[in-house]
This record gives sequence, C-alpha cells and structure tokens, in this order.
Amino acid sequence: MTTTAQPSSGEYRVLGTRPMRHDAYDKVTGAARFGADLNLPGMLHGKVLRSPHSHARIRSIDTAKAEAMPGVLAVATSEDFPVIKARPLDYENFQGNPRLIAENILANHKVLYKGHAVAAVAAVNPHVAEQALELIEVDYEVLPTVLGWREAMADDAAVLHEDMTTRFREDRAGPGQDTGQRGNIAGHLQHRLGDVEKGFRDADVIFENEYETQTVHQGYIEPHVSTASWSTDGRVTIWTSTQGAFGVRATTCGILQIPESMCKVVPMEIGGGFGAKGVTYLAPVTAVLAQKAGRPVKIAMSRKEVFEGSGPASATFIRVKLGAKNDGTLTAAEAYMVYEAGAFPGSPVGGGAVTTFGSYKCENMLVNGYDVVCNKQKAQAYRAPGQPQAAFAVESAMDELAGKLEIDPVDLRLKNAVEVGDRMPNGVPHAVFGCVELEEAMKNHPHYTTPLTGPNQGRGVAVSFRAQGGQTSSATINVNGNGTINLITGSVDIGGTRTAVAMQAAEILGIDSEDVNPSVGDTDAVGYTANTGGSRTAFDTGLAAIAAAEEVIERMKGRAALLWEVQDEDVEFENGSFVCTKNEDDRFTFKELAARLMRTGGPVTCSASAPSTGVGPIFGGNIVDVEVDPDTGKVQILRYTAFLDAGLAVHPDFVEGQIQGATVQGIGWAMNEEYFYQPDGTMANSSFLDYRMPTALDLPMIEAVIIEVPNPRHPFGLRGVGEGPIIPPLAALANAVSHATGVRMTKLPLSPTNIMEAIEEARGQ
Amino acid sequence: MTTTAQPSSGEYRVLGTRPMRHDAYDKVTGAARFGADLNLPGMLHGKVLRSPHSHARIRSIDTAKAEAMPGVLAVATSEDFPVIKARPLDYENFQGNPRLIAENILANHKVLYKGHAVAAVAAVNPHVAEQALELIEVDYEVLPTVLGWREAMADDAAVLHEDMTTRFREDRAGPGQDTGQRGNIAGHLQHRLGDVEKGFRDADVIFENEYETQTVHQGYIEPHVSTASWSTDGRVTIWTSTQGAFGVRATTCGILQIPESMCKVVPMEIGGGFGAKGVTYLAPVTAVLAQKAGRPVKIAMSRKEVFEGSGPASATFIRVKLGAKNDGTLTAAEAYMVYEAGAFPGSPVGGGAVTTFGSYKCENMLVNGYDVVCNKQKAQAYRAPGQPQAAFAVESAMDELAGKLEIDPVDLRLKNAVEVGDRMPNGVPHAVFGCVELEEAMKNHPHYTTPLTGPNQGRGVAVSFRAQGGQTSSATINVNGNGTINLITGSVDIGGTRTAVAMQAAEILGIDSEDVNPSVGDTDAVGYTANTGGSRTAFDTGLAAIAAAEEVIERMKGRAALLWEVQDEDVEFENGSFVCTKNEDDRFTFKELAARLMRTGGPVTCSASAPSTGVGPIFGGNIVDVEVDPDTGKVQILRYTAFLDAGLAVHPDFVEGQIQGATVQGIGWAMNEEYFYQPDGTMANSSFLDYRMPTALDLPMIEAVIIEVPNPRHPFGLRGVGEGPIIPPLAALANAVSHATGVRMTKLPLSPTNIMEAIEEARGQ
Repeated sequence: MTTTAQPSSGEYRVLGTRPMRHDAYDKVTGAARFGADLNLPGMLHGKVLRSPHSHARIRSIDTAKAEAMPGVLAVATSEDFPVIKARPLDYENFQGNPRLIAENILANHKVLYKGHAVAAVAAVNPHVAEQALELIEVDYEVLPTVLGWREAMADDAAVLHEDMTTRFREDRAGPGQDTGQRGNIAGHLQHRLGDVEKGFRDADVIFENEYETQTVHQGYIEPHVSTASWSTDGRVTIWTSTQGAFGVRATTCGILQIPESMCKVVPMEIGGGFGAKGVTYLAPVTAVLAQKAGRPVKIAMSRKEVFEGSGPASATFIRVKLGAKNDGTLTAAEAYMVYEAGAFPGSPVGGGAVTTFGSYKCENMLVNGYDVVCNKQKAQAYRAPGQPQAAFAVESAMDELAGKLEIDPVDLRLKNAVEVGDRMPNGVPHAVFGCVELEEAMKNHPHYTTPLTGPNQGRGVAVSFRAQGGQTSSATINVNGNGTINLITGSVDIGGTRTAVAMQAAEILGIDSEDVNPSVGDTDAVGYTANTGGSRTAFDTGLAAIAAAEEVIERMKGRAALLWEVQDEDVEFENGSFVCTKNEDDRFTFKELAARLMRTGGPVTCSASAPSTGVGPIFGGNIVDVEVDPDTGKVQILRYTAFLDAGLAVHPDFVEGQIQGATVQGIGWAMNEEYFYQPDGTMANSSFLDYRMPTALDLPMIEAVIIEVPNPRHPFGLRGVGEGPIIPPLAALANAVSHATGVRMTKLPLSPTNIMEAIEEARGQ
Repeated sequence: MTTTAQPSSGEYRVLGTRPMRHDAYDKVTGAARFGADLNLPGMLHGKVLRSPHSHARIRSIDTAKAEAMPGVLAVATSEDFPVIKARPLDYENFQGNPRLIAENILANHKVLYKGHAVAAVAAVNPHVAEQALELIEVDYEVLPTVLGWREAMADDAAVLHEDMTTRFREDRAGPGQDTGQRGNIAGHLQHRLGDVEKGFRDADVIFENEYETQTVHQGYIEPHVSTASWSTDGRVTIWTSTQGAFGVRATTCGILQIPESMCKVVPMEIGGGFGAKGVTYLAPVTAVLAQKAGRPVKIAMSRKEVFEGSGPASATFIRVKLGAKNDGTLTAAEAYMVYEAGAFPGSPVGGGAVTTFGSYKCENMLVNGYDVVCNKQKAQAYRAPGQPQAAFAVESAMDELAGKLEIDPVDLRLKNAVEVGDRMPNGVPHAVFGCVELEEAMKNHPHYTTPLTGPNQGRGVAVSFRAQGGQTSSATINVNGNGTINLITGSVDIGGTRTAVAMQAAEILGIDSEDVNPSVGDTDAVGYTANTGGSRTAFDTGLAAIAAAEEVIERMKGRAALLWEVQDEDVEFENGSFVCTKNEDDRFTFKELAARLMRTGGPVTCSASAPSTGVGPIFGGNIVDVEVDPDTGKVQILRYTAFLDAGLAVHPDFVEGQIQGATVQGIGWAMNEEYFYQPDGTMANSSFLDYRMPTALDLPMIEAVIIEVPNPRHPFGLRGVGEGPIIPPLAALANAVSHATGVRMTKLPLSPTNIMEAIEEARGQ
C-alpha cells in the first residue's frame, strides 16, 4: 500500500516509474495528427442538415435542389443506408445495433431531438455544402416535445417510438423479457438481494430522499470528425477520431451491409473521448457520401453540432431508502432509479445500479432502474457511465444517514465496508479490492484529521465502487536489431496507454520504456481489439502485450540455445537475461541477444491476443472542504483529496493524471454544468462560452492518493484507473456544500442559483 | 512440366489459378498512392544542385546566398551528414556502407560524374528551391574525365579514389584481401575449377571472342521521391518509393548516425524499380533538410535527374574462350570480365561471373572479373544484375562454337547441360532445376521446329542460369470474424507479390485469394523484411506467410478442441477443414471456425519471420527469329518464345507477365538502349524521348512457356521468376541478327548504325 507520488513497491524495474510519454513531444508541439488534419487529393467537404424540431414525423425530404446546386457532388439521407431496408427496427442494445445507430445519425421516419441529423451534403468546399443544406426541403409534422424523464413517464406523454415495448431484466439474467407495455420506458431492470421489506422492519432508523442530476456533456476538446475514401474494388477506408477503430468498422459495415473485411478504419490521434467517442456519428455518413460522389469526403462537426447532435450523459432521478441499526449497520437499501436515454433506448442505468450499494455490505437490497426515452440527444457513455449519478444519490443519503445516526461518515462507511465474498447489488460476489484499506487511508489522512477553520465551511466525503468486465485486445511485437522493439496495438491512446502498455512489455523483456516504440494500428494492421474504454486498456491490452512479450522470450530462448549449442529447455530468462542452465557464464541480455537474431534464423516477430480476465473492482473516495458565500451561493473549494485503489500504479504520473482529470470533470458536473433546454427542446447554451466547464481558475489543487491492493486478475496487479475517480466528486461536493450551508442539496448542479434557491426554500419552511 | 497458359498441375486449390490482383483496381484507377502523392501540412519542397563536371575536386561550397534567399528554409551539403565525420571512408560493400552512399548522394570532397549531387535546398515551393540552387557557389578544380572501363584501366588514367586499393577475392572466400595496388580497379574476383590450361590442351576446337555492352537504364516510370518529417522527440518518418523500407531505414540511420528505432520508413506504392530502387538517393537528404528547416521536406527527381543522378546498369567488356571436343563436349571455359562500377566500387560482376558458365557442365573453368570505377553514375542493380551481359558474351560464344562444330546450338547446350552435383563456376554444386527439361522443351517447341521462310532472316537461341540466395521476411496474419484474413508483410509489391504471397497463405488456410486482405507495412508495423529484389519475394515472404498461416491453424485447432471438448491433438486440419479425429462428424471449415473465435478465447493473430532457405537456381531460354533490312540495318523481330523454369507458377498470369516484361527490357537493351556520353561525361540523351526504350509498336508477341520442375527448397516448389527472363534476350537477339546478316555482332546495342558498321567492316575485310 503506497501513497501519493511514491513509486510503486519497487519489486519491478519499469512498472511504478515515470518515463516520458512516447507521444509527449508530438502532442505538445502539434505534430500529432488528428482527424481534422487529414486532407486527401480531391477530397470533398460534408455538412449535415439537422432538425429544427425536437419531435416530428418526417413526411418527406426533397434533395433535388441541393443536388442540382453547382459544386455539390452528393446528398445523402437515411434511405442511402442499406441497413434501413435490410434489417427491421428493434430497440435492443444500441451499441451493437447498426439499424438503431443509423436512425440516430441520419433520421429516418422521425426526428427525435433538436439537432438530430436529417441529411448530409458533400461539396467542393464547406461553404458550398452549407449553402446546399438550405436547399433541402423537409416536410415535418411537428409533435409535442417530451423533454425529460418526468414528462416521458407521465400517463399522457407523447410516445417517441410507437412500437417500442418495455423490456424487463432481472439481475444478470440474459437479455430480458418483453413486457408488452408501450410508452417511453424502454427498459426496467431489477436487482434484488435478501428481503428488503424485512430489512426495513429490522431497522432502528430509516432514511429516504430523492436526488436529481441534469444532462451534462463530456467536454472533449476535439469535435467528431471522419473522412471516408473508397477504392474501386469496393473497399472503404475511414480515418476518424474514435475510441475504437474496430467498433467503427463494425457499425459502418453493419449500416452499409458490407463485410468487415471490406472496410479499413484508421484511428487518428484523439482529442478526448471520455466514452462519447465509443460510438460513431459521421463515419457511415461520410462513407455513403464518398461512395455517391466517387471522391473522398470529410465531415467535421462544429462545437454547436457536438452539443446538439451528439450524446451527453444521462440526466437522472434517484430515490434512495436506507435502513440501519443505531450502531450504523445497514439492514436494508433500496434505490429507484430513472435514467434518461434520450432519443433512443440505452442509458447507463445498468452501470449505475451496480454502483449504488456496491461499496456496502447489506443483506437486503432492492434496486429498480428505468431506461426512459425522451426528446433529447441519445445519451452516451461519460467516464464511468451512470455511476457518478448513482453515487451522488447513495453517498448523499449515506451522509444524511450518518448525520441522523450521529456517526462519523467515514466510520459509517467502514462499519459497512464490503469484504471478499459479500454480494454486489446484482448478486455477484465481490472480489479482492481495497475497500477497507482506502477508507482507513481516508480516515487517517491529514486532510480528514485537520479541522475546518471558519464559518460557512463544510466537509464532504464520498466513496465509490465500480465493477468492470473486460474485452479483447491484440498486440504484435517486432524485435529490432538494437534490442528495441516495435509494439503495435489496436488501442487508441487516450490517456497514456501507449506508454502504460509499453512499460508492461518492457518489464517482461528486461528493457526500458524508452526501448519500446509503441504504435496504434488500423483495423488492417493489428488483431481485433475492442474499444479503449471501461478502464480496460492498460489492463487488457497490457495482457496482450505481456502475452506477445512472453512469446518473444520463448522464441529468443531458442536462439540462445542455438548459439550455446544446448537444448531450448536449457535456457532460462531471469532478471532480464537469458542464461544457460548448463553453463552459468553463458548469458545474454535481451539487447545482446537481439543483436544476434539475424544470424540465428532471422528476426523475431510475435503476435498475441488476450481474452480479458475481467478488469474487476475499482474503488475510490474523496474528501473535500468548501466555503459557501451565504449571500451569493458561490462555492470556493478549499481543499480536495482524491483516493484510488490502483492495484498497481504502472505509471504513477498517469494514475495521478487520471485521478485529477476525472475529479475536475466531477467538479464541473457537480458545480456548474448542465444543458439548458428551452421548452421546445432547443439547447440554449451550446457553446463552451455558455456551457460552463471549470477552468484552471475555478479549481483547487487536487491531491491524489494512490492505494495499491494488487488485483489478482492481472499478473502485475493492475486495476483500471480511468473512470473510478469521476464517481465520488458529485456526492462529496454536495455533502460538503450541504454541511457548509446547513441545507441539504439534492439537485445538481450546485450552482449559486440552485444553492440560493435551496437556502431560501429552507428558510421559508 | 507444364507449358503456356496452363494452370499449374492441379494439386492445389489456389496455387496455379489466376485470381484478380488485390491492388488491381487501385492501380488502374489512380487511387493507389505513390511517393509523389504525399503532401503534408507545412511541407517544403527540395531541389538538388548537381555537378556540371564529371570529375572535379570540390575546393569549397558557399551556401550563404542561397540560405539568405527569401523562401529558403534550409540548405544541406555532405557536411550535414554525421556519418562523414563519424566513419572513415572505405570502399567495401557499397550497399551496406552508409559512408559511401553518403558520398554518392551528396558529394563530399570530389564530384565523380556529371549529375553527382552536391547540395540541396528546401524552400516554400519548388521554384524558389530551384532558383536558390543558382546562388550556391561551388569552387571546383576540374580533373580529367575517365569515361569508361577502357580509359579507367589505362596505365596513365587519372585516378578517381586516390586511397582505394584493389581487393582480390577468390570464389566465395570471404571479403577478399587487399592487394595494395592503387588505380581504378576496385576489385578482382577469380573463380577457378579444375585446370583450364589442361582443358584447352584437351580440346579439339578452341574458340575465343570479345563482347561489349553499354551503360543502360532500368527504365522505371516513377522517378525517385522521398519526404521526411521529424517529430520533436528525435524520430524521423520517411515516405518514399523504394524496394525495401528496412534498407532505407538502415542507410538513413547509418548516414544520420541515429538508432534504427528512431526512424520509420513508409514504403509507398512503387512505379517500377527493377533493382534501381534498392538503394536510396533522397531519403537522407530530405531527412537532413527537414531537420534543419523544422518542417517536412519532399524531393522528387525529374526524369533528367533520374538519368544523370541515379544508377544505371554496368557497361561491360567480356572475353570468352571455349575449348571443346568435336562432339561438342566442353573441355575448358574461360572468361575475362570487366564491369564498370561507375563512380564508386560495386558493379554486379560477381553475379555475372556465376552466370557465365552456370548452364554448362565443364570440369575446367577460369573466370576473372574486374570491378572498375570511372566517371559515370554509380552503377546499380538492374534485374538479374550483371547477368544479361555475362550471358550475352557466353551465349554468343556458344553460338559461334556451335557454328564452328556444325552442331545445332540447342543440341550443343543439351550435350553440356548441367545436372545435380555438377559445379557452378564458383565451385558450389548445382541443385535441382530444369536445365535439361527446359532445353528439351525449346528443342521440341513448334517455334524451333518451324523453318525460317525468307532471306535476311535469322534465328537465335540462348539459355541462362542464375543462382539466388535468399533473405529474411516477416508476416502477420489477423483472422477476421467472417473468415477472411488481414495479411501484413514488409515486402513492397512490385510485380504482384501481394497476391502471390496471399495465395500461399490462402492455400494453407483453405480459403480463397479474395479472402485475404494483404497490406504492406511500414518499418514500425511489421517484422524485419529485406528488400523486394533478387526474385525472392514470392519465395521468401511466401515462406513467412506460410509459417504465420500454419501457426494460425495450430491456434485454431485449440479453439475447435475447446468447442468439441477434446484435446488439441484430437483435431486435424485437412483439405481446408478442422476435423475431430474422435468424431468425424465434428468438422469446421476455416470460415466456420473463424466465426467462433470471439467466444472461444478471442481473435487469432500470428506473426512469423522466416529465414530464407535460399531461392536457388533459376533457368531460362529464348528462341527468337528476326529479319534485318540489309540496306538500313533495321531489325524486325518476327517471332519470340521465352522459356522459364518457374518451379511452380503460383499465379501463371504473373509469371507470364514477368517473362514478357523482362523480355521486353532485354529487347530494349539488346536493340536500342545506351547512354550516349559526350567526351566530358555529359549524358546526351537524358530523356525518354532520346533514350530509346521499346514501345508496343517495336515489340512482337512474346510467347511465354512455363516449365515446372519443383524447387525442393520451398514447400510449394516455387522458384523466383522476376529476373531470370531478362538474361537470355541480349544473346538470343545478337545470335539471331548475326545469322540474319552473316556478320557476328559482338557489341550492343544492335542498332541500325552498329549493324551497318559491322556489315561494312566485314565487307571491307
């Protein structure tokens, strides 16, 4: 167990050190090539026509005038997507449902949010394309706007998808069953442990409250961009900003109804994704336009299009009910969760449902989660999808319960801390992770033991649990003659994973991080690799790199055996050296042997794919102190400490970076951010000027404390660190502000307006 | 044994068929991207200043004015190449000697041919760069021109390299020894078998003559081009037209004195190479300019620069002496060979020396070969380097000997045809190849059995032998879910090798050529792979692809075993299907099992490198009929049949294409082509208008006859087919013209002028 800025335990040569990022120079000097940097000979520029209505039936689209405009080479609508005719509409699994994605990226019979793409034009330059959009005539039958979960669930609500029925899913029991109920509730999941009614009967104290969060944006800097170019043999190449080239390939090929082997997706460097670039908006559109025009086509979104036309994080409503003994022991925990999915089914309510009481030992739990469609942008993943909202509700409720029981809030959590074998809300037993270790570290941290010093100050704490599966990654290693290696993976590098994966290969091979030249391959160049996301890349792609490196060692043992004239099994690899067990003087470092490969049978090249062993549990916590100006509601963050169990911090700088970056996003979400919708569904603040993300001036120093309880699912003990740290801030800040003001804040954001309203409402009572 | 246009023996599913080239559409529609198509943001354009003198000492180069010119961002001279200071000048092994290559691509203390690069400029556009060249002041001390081998070997010849001494090398005995002799003879090799003096004493008939060939160009369409771009972390990326990205990497890193891991070379599509793009001219120059300018730099040669500044094929002088019994049995064979190396040592006299008598069984042989420098462009490889010239001399002499002995020329060759175990001139025993089979096919071919029909007609025959080693290649295979594969190799595709290699992988895996998506990786993306050249790519890279495919089969057997719940060893792969030996009903085709990989442990990705087993012997022959206009010396080719032992014709269209293409080049070389040098060393015909390559109108139909005597060094029996067919045409045509005119043509080209001169000289005698 190690804390801030300490290198890892020291049992490793490379892991736990802080080498330079391999892409550092390229990124800071502007040499790195992003999607918008791509320009092909003869390339056209595309623009997208977007719906002015939040809910309307499309009676017809007339593109004739636009097509006739000089300089326009192609116009596309959803009719150009072969999947529309080939596959009937169904509402399951948005991510793997190309028909549903097609409807989101070019509306078919209905527009479902203001900004919903309707048609696209490719022209000789962006200005001509934009002018041509005005010539497209769409005949809309405008329908009532169903703006949020509350309107959507009302009995008399207009229905977005007439033929959609609610699917009910219990725990992890398969895809769920069709209830036959129509309306705007796409899904209902239920986790049930023990007997919650009995739990509440056994409780000395019962506490219940309701919590709300708003629609927020991931805030990536780089807008979505895609370029497509066809070869005349029917192969299409797509360059795009994405979290996963293979995912874009699958979706594009599904929409175009072509085999995946006919599509190459080249992932460019990415300027932020945070989950939102795990789906595609533009690739199939550029592909269709390029096919029609016979020339390459690029589309880059404007910031306004990113806000209005791509997917934010779900707004939520969560009711939490807790029962406890007087000593703090939880006897029952219940949550009723409503997550907005936006225009199409698929909110992250499932992830939120497991996070709710995942930090707590409790025999009786009941979680009901609802996935609700409404006339907003289709919700997408945002770092730990659905989990900050769930933690906001449960950790706020735990804070209130602690107050009611007059128990220190960290002590209340320690009292109920889960251990191996305890059950998550979905019934799955907990694996090893640092729940107790991290909560004890919080309790003993100087931040927590130092009292507040002034009036209008408050301290908030919160913890967070997430459970993460894994996906497949592949890696190829080519050994150079000078003992360096070229490492090719299919994982887009968002947060330093090139280096985090390279370090794991270097550790195995006994070389340095600088000896690894990592690159990100396109879908033709590397084995299948799932998205960068789910905090899985350092873990899963690390496993693939380790497997490839281990194969390199095996093959090189054979070369050493050849040179020493012994059997392969007489060669061992230990402490970075090949050693002959028959003659201890015979030894080569990796680099020494690498120089001898060309005369012992040629170069060594190894590829491996690794089925994930599952990333496993991730646990974090926050302590935050605030001061609230009682006259204006302005919140000043005084001190912030964020804790994370990293398992093993491969590169502690990167882990700290993830902790600090995620905490900043959590602060933004908690304090300021929200989509302001006008009653007709128009987003009123679709620019970075009006959508208030925190700047450096708004932020405190965020101290990152790394706990290391090794993850038994990974040979080096890693956990995924990318998402965990965004989960606690919403609750920690709400708790701190509530203590500072004496008024419980149950609704985000903690903006001056909302704080003053809450204070005035409390005074009024 | 198969003949024209017949698919191979039929024991294979894919090999011997004629699927579409994978790059066909891209190539014919202009979608394929060549080096000149690359444009990077901020890219500068470079131009090269070239010497106006063929031999001069450089007293000084003043670049100040050019550097000061607006729009100029960098000027480079050889002083900017770190290798110049880091490594002393030596004259061995041009190809692997970055110091020597550096002196060729930017002259250091001396210019050695008119057109020798002296300095280079990078500017905002090519016009500014060209203007800036005029501002570079070079102070030359002009020295006497040493224009060819004859002048170079004269006792009073000016010496190109004052500190160069002749190296003597016997047979294959290592790098040779320094004789201490100074002058223009860089190397002397000697092959000696038996006792040649005794052989001549035993002969009934002795024949001797001298033969000359001129400097000729490979005639590739695409000029040399290179673009370099540096990252601020000291890594350079180079995009270029080359036959081998790893070779460009080695040379560039050698010249820049950086580790190979700091350089990525991206091979673009190539518009012809024929050996001439196995070295580099521009990559290090663009790298140095880009480094100085801090921006990417592209240089593309003009056609004039290609002729004057890059490397042609050696001009040669060869004296052949043959001794034979009256029945035709050879008793002695001797050759004295002089090959021009041009400005720096390194002609292909070694390859020529093995070809000389490689087709013949003869106990007594002596070959002396001389590598001579002179003030011409540094000679480079041209398809079967040095061998057409050697075959021109020996096969002309054999034709004359046949006449003298009154034996049919094919019979004379059959009489002396080599068998397994006979020795090549260098003493190495012959392996299996179709010498007798091919000569018998020539003898029995309708072309040979059909008599000539008119006056002034003549028929010529010639055979040719070449021996080829091999080099390393690597390949990676990623299996897609639909049972197609992505195949990545490092072999630049010049003549269809993408498909020829893909077909071998497809044969192993039981899929079709169309199911393979082959791509050519850059040096970061694939294991070390030597140049495309030496007729080795279908052979060596085929071996790597086969190895990777066999590993794919092994891994997939494990997946089938998992599904069938048996042991890995209970699964066999036969006739394209995985079969369970415990239950014959359990079987999967490759595609069926590919679809099940994701649920049996994830994707399959395999990489392999294959040390070459050595391509081995390659044997060909020509029959050609001509008619010569006795008044003008104009030659009309009436009929042309070219024979080649392909071992196994992987893709018969490609083999026929190689035979026809190489024969066309041989026809050009024989009939018209030569560099016309003015006395001061200026090339007088440095354009495709004046350098007379054959056009479609000059050419007959070339019938290609494929013999298939399997090569035991390759699992499918392949031989390398790219170079062999260019060897016989020079001699076959000279023999045909000699018979048509009654005057022996000993000097190429067989141009009207040379033919009329020979006729008139013969009449005068």
